[in-house]
Amino acid sequence: MRSVLFSVCTSTLLVSSGAASFIFPAARNFIYIVPDGYGQSSQTMARDYVSLLRNGENPKAPVTYQLAADEMVIGTVRTQASDNLITDSAASGTAFACGVKTYNDAIGVDPKGQPVGSILEAAKMEGFKTGLVVTSTINHATPAVYAAHVANRNSYEKIAEHEIGYSHPLGPQVDLLLGGGRCYFKPKSDPTSCRSDDIDLLKYAKSKGFHIMQDRAAFDDLKKGHSKTADLPYIGLFNDDQLKYEIDRSRTPKSEPSLLEMVDTALTSLDRATKRTSKGYFIMIEASRIDHAGHANDAAAHLHEVLMYNEVMSYVRAWINAHPDTLMLSAADHECGGLTLNGFNPLPLKAVSMSIEHVTRLWAAYNGTDRRAYLADTLLPGYGLAGLPAADIDTLLANNRLGADLTALLSRKAGVNWSTGGHTASDVTLHGYGSGKRGQSLRADMAGNWDNTQLPGYIEGVLKVNMGKVTKRLRAKGTAWVGKREVGGPDHTHSH
Amino acid sequence: MRSVLFSVCTSTLLVSSGAASFIFPAARNFIYIVPDGYGQSSQTMARDYVSLLRNGENPKAPVTYQLAADEMVIGTVRTQASDNLITDSAASGTAFACGVKTYNDAIGVDPKGQPVGSILEAAKMEGFKTGLVVTSTINHATPAVYAAHVANRNSYEKIAEHEIGYSHPLGPQVDLLLGGGRCYFKPKSDPTSCRSDDIDLLKYAKSKGFHIMQDRAAFDDLKKGHSKTADLPYIGLFNDDQLKYEIDRSRTPKSEPSLLEMVDTALTSLDRATKRTSKGYFIMIEASRIDHAGHANDAAAHLHEVLMYNEVMSYVRAWINAHPDTLMLSAADHECGGLTLNGFNPLPLKAVSMSIEHVTRLWAAYNGTDRRAYLADTLLPGYGLAGLPAADIDTLLANNRLGADLTALLSRKAGVNWSTGGHTASDVTLHGYGSGKRGQSLRADMAGNWDNTQLPGYIEGVLKVNMGKVTKRLRAKGTAWVGKREVGGPDHTHSH
Repeated sequence: MRSVLFSVCTSTLLVSSGAASFIFPAARNFIYIVPDGYGQSSQTMARDYVSLLRNGENPKAPVTYQLAADEMVIGTVRTQASDNLITDSAASGTAFACGVKTYNDAIGVDPKGQPVGSILEAAKMEGFKTGLVVTSTINHATPAVYAAHVANRNSYEKIAEHEIGYSHPLGPQVDLLLGGGRCYFKPKSDPTSCRSDDIDLLKYAKSKGFHIMQDRAAFDDLKKGHSKTADLPYIGLFNDDQLKYEIDRSRTPKSEPSLLEMVDTALTSLDRATKRTSKGYFIMIEASRIDHAGHANDAAAHLHEVLMYNEVMSYVRAWINAHPDTLMLSAADHECGGLTLNGFNPLPLKAVSMSIEHVTRLWAAYNGTDRRAYLADTLLPGYGLAGLPAADIDTLLANNRLGADLTALLSRKAGVNWSTGGHTASDVTLHGYGSGKRGQSLRADMAGNWDNTQLPGYIEGVLKVNMGKVTKRLRAKGTAWVGKREVGGPDHTHSH
Repeated sequence: MRSVLFSVCTSTLLVSSGAASFIFPAARNFIYIVPDGYGQSSQTMARDYVSLLRNGENPKAPVTYQLAADEMVIGTVRTQASDNLITDSAASGTAFACGVKTYNDAIGVDPKGQPVGSILEAAKMEGFKTGLVVTSTINHATPAVYAAHVANRNSYEKIAEHEIGYSHPLGPQVDLLLGGGRCYFKPKSDPTSCRSDDIDLLKYAKSKGFHIMQDRAAFDDLKKGHSKTADLPYIGLFNDDQLKYEIDRSRTPKSEPSLLEMVDTALTSLDRATKRTSKGYFIMIEASRIDHAGHANDAAAHLHEVLMYNEVMSYVRAWINAHPDTLMLSAADHECGGLTLNGFNPLPLKAVSMSIEHVTRLWAAYNGTDRRAYLADTLLPGYGLAGLPAADIDTLLANNRLGADLTALLSRKAGVNWSTGGHTASDVTLHGYGSGKRGQSLRADMAGNWDNTQLPGYIEGVLKVNMGKVTKRLRAKGTAWVGKREVGGPDHTHSH
């Protein structure tokens, strides 16, 4: 194991830090995991829930069982944007991906709107294989910042073009993309498209040698015939919109792969593709919808997204033990929902089998004649609120804001509180893992409190790649191609 | 530096953990710091406040300045009690001090009401010097657990007796006590006593060789004439009740010493007293009133207590750099108030110069003729709410619940939210520090997520002392002396 002495390179917007230089452990591969919108209380809620179930649901049993993420805690991360103490996923994602402090809405650009190279692009430039695996749309802010450069996060069509290399100045940067957002890759002539133009990104991808998957069957075929069809590059988009919440997906597991299944497939592919190459891989995995459930103040959906994140953390730890030339860091981009556990009893969450997103979708689609019975007999039991008094059901029907009312009722039942439908300014937890001496070195170097912009500098040091070189090449193409920042646009700290 | 291989000893109530054994760094001295009721958002609030002031109060300036505690983050701590997912300071304090999971209200006893030896008592037994420095009453739960064993935290008279050695089965255990709670040490014949009996604990202490300080003048004399009067043991109680909030104390700094001043004096005394002995010292320092300000949902008082905690952390780090034979760990016993930063702008806190405790005390004591003018011209400006519209002042006067109304107004102004007047279940942050290789070893060993019961095992390993030996000696005296647990008593997660 060789080591290099390296200074954490921060952007022009310097951040003071206690530890400014390291001896980096060398590793071939880096796995970066973002549990979007995951706060410290999210993990406590999930751990206490699991521990209670294992303890026979006795709330007086003091035994707690650590979840996988617990065992890899090494510090905390500061999250603010350049223009707001409360960040959105775009600004904090750009910090994670590119090491610069920037404004809310920015995708891979600095506060002046200039493109900045990402750690994924820097790895690609040096011959590493690269991957993005998410449960949101693949062109959502958190994956976007690794392979797109646009002034506004809501330029979804443009982001999809960049991610697949269609209009990225340096061509395709990502060897493997898995997630949702299929509609952005289809021309508007397709009735399921959400593009405003005729660009057919899946056709483009195919022409560039990408294997295309558009449903679970294709994903399963890839897994089964891994030796034949799993050659990179590939793209798998399993929903036109976001992938389903895990609480909903697990009712119909054949509809879409889980995050864990996608991670398993992606790591297997990246490992195979780099077995005989001089360079390894960089992959960003996002447990995207922890954040969405936070915005919705949906305690049960949030819980199951957090449990899935912990399953992925457990899988990745085992993977690294078997592939010790690999390091992992994981931190949320920000907290979401202002979750606190103020009178806490997570057991009522056990009866919930649907997200509030699914409940309200069913409610809107209901065209039967007995709305009251449908609510009382189907939706309320599905949301863990069976047996609500008739008067409360009257109120729900009269209020006509089922989502907000049910999430509030469930949260009260479980003794949790949400202070906002947006993000908060609080620090988030940093996790890290490596096997043996690499792991010791990672813990000793990266324990502490970090600015979000400092993390990619560590990955640069480990993989010996350079984001600055990418920035130079991007700017050689001019900067007009990133588009213009909308001034006075919506405040995205309240919209994911 | 010698090392010993050691297994973390947990109580009969085992807690699963990823890391079960260490190579301990050897050190002569251990400093344990408890910021009572300090959550992750408390630190973000304080850091952002300081950074904003340094940045010319420009909320769009992205530069953040780390506070001292930030630079020593190493992990997180789980806090639940044996009988409640939400702990009080007694149960979590007993976990920190004695390594056992116990019920809310328990002071140095296990769930069966049996006494358990503390890390302070174990250090004392092996010849270490010991100290407790707090800003609460000295017989409050957090200091109590280190040198008292009673079934109920509200047995304040008994706790004071134990702490000074009057009725502790092993005699005086603490060489240095600094804090509040003077009234519990005076016989009821004294009009300022809060005892129900004639026991004169200060007189008893004097007879055992303690130097007694009852005001700031005596404290200053100790500091000035340090070479003559600073010999241990000593006790300094500077208020009959809790010491003042820092935001109030700093207006009249001559009234009481600050936590920082007490820490400076205590460490100097302990260092002097152990210069030529074979063993060093153990000290527990508590920034007690972070918690009280959380219970009161008093954002500005909370902020200034957290800033004082960071000053102490900075002082202790410098102390350890100058005295490298010393290690430090620091973690809150629990979060308090459910603080989240959901629309955050800490700048309005700058105008606040009084705690809500002081405001309501002034309000209750006011006997002038123009209550409205007193409120508008004195109390509201003191609480950072100058210029409130006349209609709002009408409402305040009509509501007649000034404390709750003003804290809510200030919190809204600063964009912070409190979800409870009690504690929450969330994990808290673990900090640690050591100089050079000892520090590296501490970071590598103690990075991670820990149960609160696991921390004293580490101190045992470092100092090579044994809490089990103390437990045996305590139980040799029978167990009736700890008293009986009140069943169905008040829920102390809502009362400190």
